[in-house]
Amino acid sequence: MPFFPIVSWLKTYRRADLHGDVFAGLITAILLVPQGIAFALLAGLPAQFGLYASILPPLVYAVFGTSRTLSVGPVSVAAIMIASALQLPEVSALGNPLQSAVMLSAESGAILLAMALFQMGGLVNFISHPVLTGFTSGAALLIMGSQLPQVLGLKPPSCGLDAFCYLTYLDSTHLVTLALSVASLALLLFFGKPLSWLLQRLRFSPALINSITKCGPLMTVVVATLAVGHWQLGERHVAVVGEVVAGLPHLQLDFFDVDTWKILASPASFIALIAYVESVAIAKVVANLRGEKINPNQELIAIGLANFATAMSGGMPVAGGFSRTMVNFAAGARTQIAMVIAALLLAVAVMFFTAWFTNIPKSALAVIILVAVFPLVKFKNIAHTWHYDRGDGIAQIATLISVLVLGIEEGIMLGIFLTFASYLRKASHPHIAVVGRLPQTKHYRNIKRHQVQTWPHLLLLRIDENITFANMNFIEAFIDAQLQSAPEVKHVVLIFTSVSDIDTTALEALEQLNCRFQHSGMTLNFAEVKGFLLDKVQHSDLFAHLSGQLFFDTDEAVVSLTAKSK
Amino acid sequence: MPFFPIVSWLKTYRRADLHGDVFAGLITAILLVPQGIAFALLAGLPAQFGLYASILPPLVYAVFGTSRTLSVGPVSVAAIMIASALQLPEVSALGNPLQSAVMLSAESGAILLAMALFQMGGLVNFISHPVLTGFTSGAALLIMGSQLPQVLGLKPPSCGLDAFCYLTYLDSTHLVTLALSVASLALLLFFGKPLSWLLQRLRFSPALINSITKCGPLMTVVVATLAVGHWQLGERHVAVVGEVVAGLPHLQLDFFDVDTWKILASPASFIALIAYVESVAIAKVVANLRGEKINPNQELIAIGLANFATAMSGGMPVAGGFSRTMVNFAAGARTQIAMVIAALLLAVAVMFFTAWFTNIPKSALAVIILVAVFPLVKFKNIAHTWHYDRGDGIAQIATLISVLVLGIEEGIMLGIFLTFASYLRKASHPHIAVVGRLPQTKHYRNIKRHQVQTWPHLLLLRIDENITFANMNFIEAFIDAQLQSAPEVKHVVLIFTSVSDIDTTALEALEQLNCRFQHSGMTLNFAEVKGFLLDKVQHSDLFAHLSGQLFFDTDEAVVSLTAKSK
Repeated sequence: MPFFPIVSWLKTYRRADLHGDVFAGLITAILLVPQGIAFALLAGLPAQFGLYASILPPLVYAVFGTSRTLSVGPVSVAAIMIASALQLPEVSALGNPLQSAVMLSAESGAILLAMALFQMGGLVNFISHPVLTGFTSGAALLIMGSQLPQVLGLKPPSCGLDAFCYLTYLDSTHLVTLALSVASLALLLFFGKPLSWLLQRLRFSPALINSITKCGPLMTVVVATLAVGHWQLGERHVAVVGEVVAGLPHLQLDFFDVDTWKILASPASFIALIAYVESVAIAKVVANLRGEKINPNQELIAIGLANFATAMSGGMPVAGGFSRTMVNFAAGARTQIAMVIAALLLAVAVMFFTAWFTNIPKSALAVIILVAVFPLVKFKNIAHTWHYDRGDGIAQIATLISVLVLGIEEGIMLGIFLTFASYLRKASHPHIAVVGRLPQTKHYRNIKRHQVQTWPHLLLLRIDENITFANMNFIEAFIDAQLQSAPEVKHVVLIFTSVSDIDTTALEALEQLNCRFQHSGMTLNFAEVKGFLLDKVQHSDLFAHLSGQLFFDTDEAVVSLTAKSK
Repeated sequence: MPFFPIVSWLKTYRRADLHGDVFAGLITAILLVPQGIAFALLAGLPAQFGLYASILPPLVYAVFGTSRTLSVGPVSVAAIMIASALQLPEVSALGNPLQSAVMLSAESGAILLAMALFQMGGLVNFISHPVLTGFTSGAALLIMGSQLPQVLGLKPPSCGLDAFCYLTYLDSTHLVTLALSVASLALLLFFGKPLSWLLQRLRFSPALINSITKCGPLMTVVVATLAVGHWQLGERHVAVVGEVVAGLPHLQLDFFDVDTWKILASPASFIALIAYVESVAIAKVVANLRGEKINPNQELIAIGLANFATAMSGGMPVAGGFSRTMVNFAAGARTQIAMVIAALLLAVAVMFFTAWFTNIPKSALAVIILVAVFPLVKFKNIAHTWHYDRGDGIAQIATLISVLVLGIEEGIMLGIFLTFASYLRKASHPHIAVVGRLPQTKHYRNIKRHQVQTWPHLLLLRIDENITFANMNFIEAFIDAQLQSAPEVKHVVLIFTSVSDIDTTALEALEQLNCRFQHSGMTLNFAEVKGFLLDKVQHSDLFAHLSGQLFFDTDEAVVSLTAKSK
């Protein structure tokens, strides 16, 4: 993998690609402005933190990233994680939340780069998809709850991320704000299917329909802002964004401080983890649609550097955003040129148009957030997981609930823990089949699923898992139960078609089992031991004192052992 | 399993068994007296804590235990764990180490009973044998180090379990004590092989030789005590046991206190865990020698109740002792009647002979401890594990070292952690074989190990592990690497002989892989999918949109796909 993936696609860049890229860049920029401001506010930060995060990071990702269409910038889930981190007592004790946010960006980036350096990218595999989906769904619900004050115009003293707390202030709903929210929501939803249907009837071209409907968030913000200006709603207590710092960010490296980094270590790790995992997951989805490939290790570097870049330009942590990436892809982006164009447009916006942002009502931004995160709540996926694999389903639902009830970091932790617990539970309850011969063949199959031939003196067991400390006791108990119900058995054959490893614990237990069999006048035999496993175990005590034999295949064992029993 | 396993063996008890039991009981009692006192001192407790622990607990175990020859009582490893627990700042802050020791017994017992109640016995499987051996070896070395002051007569202010600290006091070695230690060691060692060889030459019967040599610890103590009395060594600063409380213990239930139990929860859990795991391991070894069986769940109850019994009688935590059980077994114990007799003899000893214990020199007891724990340091086993399985070997050595350097609980924790880490590392690096056909057969084997036939358009992969979140990325990377080196491949066949499960994460990744193959004009096929796995996955999106086919066996896939490629 080259260190600068940009080179490989720039080499083959064709003029035809430029058309799609420019158009997609424009559409994505139109989405990025309201999202940038909204996610910054969601994180509890001034608007420019989101805008700055939309300029330098996408440029850096364009150079280092392996996805052609991933849209890197502020994302909702990272935003709520920042909000949660800034509310931690030890973090708020630092007294400078804006500086802490920048440090979170820098430290997240540093963590990802360190993981790349030490080749620890594999660690993130241990967040399973169900846990990730459960987490995202929970975070999305949390985000929706956190928008209640903005949507309803509530002014609760300090509820943090506790939606239930907000509900106790329902009687202080600000009706003007609520009206503005409802109108914004109606307009935003209208820009979806209804407008699309209308334009189709008016015989607009699909490309034009696509680009017009994508302007929903921007149009909603524009209309809501004009309404605020026209009716002077700012003076009627409708919360607005307020003054946004104008001009490009000043680059700085003022974010190295060992003590603060120690305090931020835990939230920064989780933000890094989620930013990376979500980015790669989204990147893979769009890459597969075009038969492209993502390099997970290079992504560590790319997302890590993008977060470093956001810190340098005073922005919030960044990741690949789901809805934005889909918009970018659907708008025809061929390469990261699209995101370069979007970033340049954002730069123009912060240089010349920040004055226009002052009157944007927070309620309209809240509505944009609600609509953006709604698809992240994946009840259908959760139901599907539940039916497919109960262990995964439990981990997923528990993660979702604990994100809501216990908190964001606790939710991830519990999810990872449950994934392992369910994995180990499965590993410690291996599938074992008692097998017999399919008549007139040399095939051996599960006696529960097939009509097979068996022999009273012979117990044939196919163990469908590696034999380790985690499952040896289960296997022993299974064998004992079988022997109890079939006391005439003289020879036990363990069929190792599915066994690729025997660890030290299991080897010792098999030695003890062999010893016990020998004492009761029985034999322990093995069949179909794979070559590399045989290399490992053949010099062990087990095989030196084996009561039975080692057979090449099951049929050979049956022929030999039935002859013996006669 | 009956709740009172004693009934099943009492029913068939024969008079012939009594001979062995009485003799073994006597021999074990002779060992129990010095061990009981020595292990109590090792734990930092008065002698009666070890003696009391040798009376009621074996009686309780005799009723509830499933091992016929396990000798339950004070053990060295639990003793050092108690010493370590009593030195914890939060525990010593309680101000009453003797009461804390009793509470540790009670809480350990309660923890084991709770595990039995909630059927959580399986949890202890997760201490692998290598980690257990590493831990025991480390603990034994720690114990040996802790005996330095007793052996050399040092009087350091407070070194805890830090052997290096003791070494700085070497210049204060008390020469009389050292002389006594050396003499005791010589006598104790003489009772081993030298005496045995001598008695053989004198034509003693093997049974008599066996019983005489087992008296080594007692004779050493007797001789050393007589020496102390004769030369008035107590007045010459040789440390002695001092007055031992006479009489049977008063039974009491004065050990329920929620706050103290909370403080002791962590050390009590570790003591319970190790007491149980060690007991079952030893019980299994001796059971296998006679073709008997241990029931792990019933052992939770038996060891749990034995610890409750030791708490009621004011003793230290108990477990099955390795050396004592071997002595009991070798002396001819047939059933727990042997331990009942030993316990009754101990009761007689504390009733009438405690005055004899006052002058026992601590140095002689230290020598007995040294000799008793020496066989627990298993360097040979460690070397063996290292060669058999590198991951297990690393976990074992790291556990040993961290017990010495970091502490006892930290050592167990690290060992368990490393076992999991190495397990997951293995699980995330599954064995995958590229296979081909053995000429003139329908057998498919690893191309690296056999001369096989292959086809340029076909990639046959046998995945030797369940496909899960832990290894899906590795499998994907493997497939990609294969395809990169063989660009003419059109059909990939995954052979599932060893695959018993596909989790949600892996299923989604396979769906994405299938999608990517479809896009590149390739097909993804499966062969030899087990019945129960097929039941699980056949309604998934993967099989609904499969680019290739599902084949019953590998040969069928090869025949069909080679025909297609023509």
